[in-house]
This record gives sequence, C-alpha cells and structure tokens, in this order.
Amino acid sequence: MSDGKTINTVLVIIAMEAEAAPFVQHMQLTKDEPSLLGPPLPAMSYSGAHGATKIVVVCNGKDALHGVDSVGTVGAALTAFAAIQAVKPDLVINAGTCGGFKAMGGEIGDVYVSSSFKNHDRRIPLPGFDKFGTYTVEAPECLKLAAALDLKVGVVSTGNSLDCTPTDAEVMKANEASIKEMEGAAIAQVTQMYGVPLFAIKSVTDIVDGDRTTGEEFMENLGAAAQALQEKLPKVIEFLAGKTTACL
Amino acid sequence: MSDGKTINTVLVIIAMEAEAAPFVQHMQLTKDEPSLLGPPLPAMSYSGAHGATKIVVVCNGKDALHGVDSVGTVGAALTAFAAIQAVKPDLVINAGTCGGFKAMGGEIGDVYVSSSFKNHDRRIPLPGFDKFGTYTVEAPECLKLAAALDLKVGVVSTGNSLDCTPTDAEVMKANEASIKEMEGAAIAQVTQMYGVPLFAIKSVTDIVDGDRTTGEEFMENLGAAAQALQEKLPKVIEFLAGKTTACL
Repeated sequence: MSDGKTINTVLVIIAMEAEAAPFVQHMQLTKDEPSLLGPPLPAMSYSGAHGATKIVVVCNGKDALHGVDSVGTVGAALTAFAAIQAVKPDLVINAGTCGGFKAMGGEIGDVYVSSSFKNHDRRIPLPGFDKFGTYTVEAPECLKLAAALDLKVGVVSTGNSLDCTPTDAEVMKANEASIKEMEGAAIAQVTQMYGVPLFAIKSVTDIVDGDRTTGEEFMENLGAAAQALQEKLPKVIEFLAGKTTACL
Repeated sequence: MSDGKTINTVLVIIAMEAEAAPFVQHMQLTKDEPSLLGPPLPAMSYSGAHGATKIVVVCNGKDALHGVDSVGTVGAALTAFAAIQAVKPDLVINAGTCGGFKAMGGEIGDVYVSSSFKNHDRRIPLPGFDKFGTYTVEAPECLKLAAALDLKVGVVSTGNSLDCTPTDAEVMKANEASIKEMEGAAIAQVTQMYGVPLFAIKSVTDIVDGDRTTGEEFMENLGAAAQALQEKLPKVIEFLAGKTTACL
C-alpha cells in the first residue's frame, strides 16, 4: 500500500442491493449481463466510469435457497475473491450501512471511513489463532478524505450477527470499534491475500449501545442511512480521481 | 442429490494440515505442486486414487499474516469454492475434529457422520434472514455407511469461535447439534451453490457441555481424535467405491 499506486480501477463491494441501488443510479453504471463474477455465485456487477477512473460495483446477490441478500462473512469473502480476480482493482471500497456506538460519539446518519478492520465473533484462545481470529487489517490512512468530506474515522468490527451479546460487546470494546457490521473484516482477509488496499465507507442505521433493538432500529433508519451514504459515496469517487493510495 | 450419480471423484476438505497428514499418507496421495487451487489462496492439494475412485484432499493452508492454519468459515468457504471449481467432484467430504455433547451421547474419540449442517453464530432476527443465518443444508442419508463403519449420526453446528458462550449453547441446543466445529456449514453454503452433495466425518476432541475448557481439552486429545478419524476415513473411501450418493 505504501508504493502509492495511482488509482485507475475501483471495486466497490456493497452487500445488499437496496444499499447499492442509489449509488449505481447516480454514477450511471450499467448492469453487467452476465455478472462479471459468473455462476454459481449469485453476485451482480455494475460497470462504468467517473472521468478516467473505472468503477465496478458488486453486490452479494440473493441467496438461492432463502431469497434474501447473502449478507455476512461467507458471502462477502466469496464475492470479494471472485470480484478481485475478475476486476483486478487498484483499490477496494466496502460501502454500506452499520451500527454505531454512543460511547464512541456515533449518531444515526453519521458516515464513517475505516481506520482498520477486525472481527468480534472469532474467539480462538490458542497461541497464534487468537490474533488470526481477530484478523486486524489496517486501512490506508484516509485523513485528507475524512477532512474533505466531513467523515468520522473509526475501527470496523465485523461479526455474523445483527444482535449483540454481552461477549460481542466486550470484544467490540477491546477492538475499540466505532462501526459494527457484517462483512468488512471478511473482505479485508481477502484483499490482504491479493495485496490490494481496502477501506470502508459506512453510514449508521442504529446505535449498538443504545436502548432499542437493532432489528427494529435498522429497518426504521435504513432509508435515511442509505441516503446519507449516497450523498458521500459519489464524492469519495470524485476525491480519488488521479490520486494514489498513499495520498488519501 | 436424489439422482444417485455414481461417485467417481471425491473431494475431501480438511481444515488443518495436522488433521490431514495421516490420511494423505495412508492413501498414498501426492502433493500437487503448485496446488490445484492456485494463488492467492494458501490452500494445498493432494491427489491420488483408491481403485477407480479419484481422491483429492485439500487443506486451507497457513494464513500468510498469522502463520496458523486458516480455520473458520471464511477460509473454508474460499477453499471449497476454488476446490470445487478445480476438481469438479461428485461428492465432497468435510473431515476433521470437533466438539461433542454429553447430552447427545457424545464421547471423546467418537466418529460422527453428519445428518445436516447448521450455523450457530449467525443470529439475524429479520424475516427470511433468520433462516438464512442458520442456513440448514441436509446431508445425503448415510445410514448404511454409519452402520457399516459404526459411526454416530448427528447435526453439525458451525461457528467461528472455539469457546462456547451461553448464547452459542442455546442456539446449538435449538440446532439439535451433536457436533460443534468451525467449517462445515460454510462448506455446505458453497456445495449447495454448485449442487454437489456433502457430508462430514468428524472425530470428537472435546466435550462442549463438559467441565473443562475447550482449548485445553482440544490440545490434549487432538492426537487421539486424529487417530480415530484416520481409522475410519480410509474405510469411508472404500465404502464409497462404485456406489451412488443415493445409496449411502
């Protein structure tokens, strides 16, 4: 990441179609038929450009057995693996919605950029496996981007559950999490294999350490958070034009 | 799975090298150089035959950042995805060690065959997503195999943690789990995409609802459980010769 390669091709991974739709429309991307990722993955891809920058958006797609978006780490890792192979991006952005933390200053509608990625539901208390479980991956430093677009900066903590048990809360606190979501760290495990830089742009739908249940709050604020994400994401793409990953 | 295709090629997925080594040696398989899965996955493959049956064993390999076997659902899903693409098997077997349950009659050294696969750490209490989270995949009925080789039969429940929180215990009870491990249901999510049948053969290293911590018990019994697995696994391959997946 330190060589500061110019960003010519950006892959944007968004778990849910509903999260991706406004951005795909705004950037006037074209749905690839068939998807660049091909079967048997249910993933969809959308391609286009912003100036000289090539943009590909991929969504995990609908799970064939259950008919819902294939959220979580398994779907995210498979999508990232196949998409990087197909697109060969200079930079991967994981965009979407997330939970925020009152204790970290988070509010509904905030948009964050990641400082790093960690897992909070892979507890393996054996030497070496403990760090593998957390799997910390540093994101490129995006301080200029954060300042220019008024983004908060924080640690993305990933797990496969929408709820939060006392154990999850304890691990997320140890992770110094500002963002709780379900894909980032799995994508990070794949991008580091390929040696491609990754950061996340996530908007807050619910407050993890608040009074309300996540499911209820998530459904209520998904539209507003998607809107907040939509306002920032095209500006992120504009900001990247002609830059290197060392100058964000 | 009901068409009863003859089993000509078997892919055996084993997370850890230490679990795979005795079986690879016994079956006189040859390490593929380079691996059939290719970079950037750290996975290794070993190929050979038993009579007319082609056998490929794959391990997740060592994670490049942490130097330990890439256990858990992300590594397992990626290995399964790339291995099925490369090998095009008629049947996938996920072999390895696991936790057993005193309450389900499990004892250290028992060898189980799967009746189905479920997840226990993907709690998503939203309509449709709840069942996606559990992601139940039925295994082919292996009653003849179980009787012939004196295997216990039970539900494989998968999660990314070696320990067991009260919430995990509750979900595993709802899953009617006989086997707690870290890869099966992720592999099942991939095999169902490809329409390839999957069952698991797992030997018990530790008792989840017992008095001792899993890490301690796991390290102590890994050798004995690997030995028990090693006694059964070649017999499973012998049993499969010339059969169809409808006649197990």
